[in-house]
Amino acid sequence: MRVNGKNYHAVWMRENTVRMVDQLALPFRFRIKKSDSWEESAQAISDMTVRGAGTIGATAAFAVLQALLASSQKNYVKNCTHAVREIKKTRPTANDLFYAADSMLEEINKSSSFSGARQNAEKKARWIFESYLESGEKIGLHGNALLRKNACVLTHCNAGWLALVDWGSATAPIYAASRTGKKPFVFVDETRPRLQGAKLTAWELAQEKIAHCVIADNAAGHFMQKGEIDIVITGADRIAMNGDTANKIGTYEKSVLARENGIPFYIAAPLSTFDTHTESGKEIIIEERSQSEVLRVFGRGKHHTGEVEIYSKKSPAKNPAFDVTPAKYITGFITPKGIIKPKESEIRGLFK
Amino acid sequence: MRVNGKNYHAVWMRENTVRMVDQLALPFRFRIKKSDSWEESAQAISDMTVRGAGTIGATAAFAVLQALLASSQKNYVKNCTHAVREIKKTRPTANDLFYAADSMLEEINKSSSFSGARQNAEKKARWIFESYLESGEKIGLHGNALLRKNACVLTHCNAGWLALVDWGSATAPIYAASRTGKKPFVFVDETRPRLQGAKLTAWELAQEKIAHCVIADNAAGHFMQKGEIDIVITGADRIAMNGDTANKIGTYEKSVLARENGIPFYIAAPLSTFDTHTESGKEIIIEERSQSEVLRVFGRGKHHTGEVEIYSKKSPAKNPAFDVTPAKYITGFITPKGIIKPKESEIRGLFK
Repeated sequence: MRVNGKNYHAVWMRENTVRMVDQLALPFRFRIKKSDSWEESAQAISDMTVRGAGTIGATAAFAVLQALLASSQKNYVKNCTHAVREIKKTRPTANDLFYAADSMLEEINKSSSFSGARQNAEKKARWIFESYLESGEKIGLHGNALLRKNACVLTHCNAGWLALVDWGSATAPIYAASRTGKKPFVFVDETRPRLQGAKLTAWELAQEKIAHCVIADNAAGHFMQKGEIDIVITGADRIAMNGDTANKIGTYEKSVLARENGIPFYIAAPLSTFDTHTESGKEIIIEERSQSEVLRVFGRGKHHTGEVEIYSKKSPAKNPAFDVTPAKYITGFITPKGIIKPKESEIRGLFK
Repeated sequence: MRVNGKNYHAVWMRENTVRMVDQLALPFRFRIKKSDSWEESAQAISDMTVRGAGTIGATAAFAVLQALLASSQKNYVKNCTHAVREIKKTRPTANDLFYAADSMLEEINKSSSFSGARQNAEKKARWIFESYLESGEKIGLHGNALLRKNACVLTHCNAGWLALVDWGSATAPIYAASRTGKKPFVFVDETRPRLQGAKLTAWELAQEKIAHCVIADNAAGHFMQKGEIDIVITGADRIAMNGDTANKIGTYEKSVLARENGIPFYIAAPLSTFDTHTESGKEIIIEERSQSEVLRVFGRGKHHTGEVEIYSKKSPAKNPAFDVTPAKYITGFITPKGIIKPKESEIRGLFK
């Protein structure tokens, strides 16, 4: 998608160098970070320079390729095995991270020669990268059909192109609608505590010149009640086989409010988000993150850009990172293979 | 209530001086601001040094008294009339402000002499001040009956003692429960955009040594879903005769989520919050406040305490200050006269 009028991907690789949009610097600075080694690329995943399932997956694939390209013929299997082990430690719950790193290693292991391994690994990394691009584009194609002209869409957190190499999941239908002249308008939940809606989604939309506004998470229900929102589209972190969906904290609230107000509520996701090993939301453990994410916000002051404490440290916080939206509140899933109902039979059908 | 172990009111008057807890400095500094003239007291209302219906009402009454005490016998009616007019301009929608200022002026006008006016006005200001104290205490008494031992209460925004001279409205049942040994636990919605939950309610509770935690507004639904919340109690800005209630943005969201999860949802309010001139929520106009409240947060940094921008100014915001919770989501109103259902007959009964 566009930044300052030029097209970018969230991460890409040329020669031995991985380049990525530094998501920690956004929205205050747009900066491309370079990584010349698998260690640096792994570090970029763990320190959240890159984030989002697809972008993490592509970065992990590139990192394994970097490990291979930096190896001598003698040690390449050992080196790559070690690198994959380390890369998989960078984030605890990102399914795409494990999938990308493991399938790169598999490719390397099954090759009969060093040069064959290099060729196959390069092809595999390219394929992983492009499959994320294609997922986003197809989600956009299918999701666009749900949006009328001038549709008002509510979204939560950032399931944008920054998170899926390009197009995004929740944003893909919006970008597709914009490019087909529908002029969508987007209500962007700021998404406390980490504010990925305000910091990333709003920035993406501004760069793509799509009309939008940032709202306090508290205001979404009010705009639904007033009839100003036509459809809600969010991404997902993990989707169970019965349709229950784990996503950023607050998604459950929006789903209940959407149903109460008769507004369709869709989850947009690539196939890698559907977890065939999880039967229902009951099995999903919710990560409790640091209290300091609630206590502190990152912002730009007159004199200083950094974190400020917004209340007294004497008060503790609770900070569940995700919640589970039961399938009954979900109108449908927008997938690269089309739009499906939140039913086990339809979800399993995606994998046939 | 207690601050650093000592008892305070949000505002009080001794001799000709009004003293108030500076709510702009909280929670980072606890500071008592002194005002020696009606102009300074009016300024404290308009710049939000004091806020909350009852605290504004009491401050306004004291300000009119200051105007009278500063007047000569010759001009006192003219001076007080002028002061009341100016005081009523300080905040646009605070019903208690108009009520307090007008009833002080009425008292002055109906007195037959200067000394009589001083006596009656002093008595009236005292009565207004004490009626807020008494309202809070009685709300606490009635609301306490709704809380079991170790009850987990969710509250939104600050309807605490800072807002009602003492006790508060939504907090009064919690303080009462705590003082009767029930050890309540409070989930405090941080309440974006202005964060009055995190900045004021959490501070009040910490000072009263009541167990609590701050949560992102997004997390309230999750804790309801998990069965961790027994009851929701919020305050109100205005209650229509059919029970529809305007309160801080986000209240509507919590009410829908509470009903969906079978959790009782109560509004605690003094009688002055019930607006006998408003039939239903449809008549309530929602104030749209400055975009900068969403864009900026006030916090304490390592080097500087002040405002920071949390996202790019290129993105606009929408900032409705209040929303309307339809009566059907409200279990009951906790009033100084007892707990009533959200029905017109019961609401009108309060005024008989």
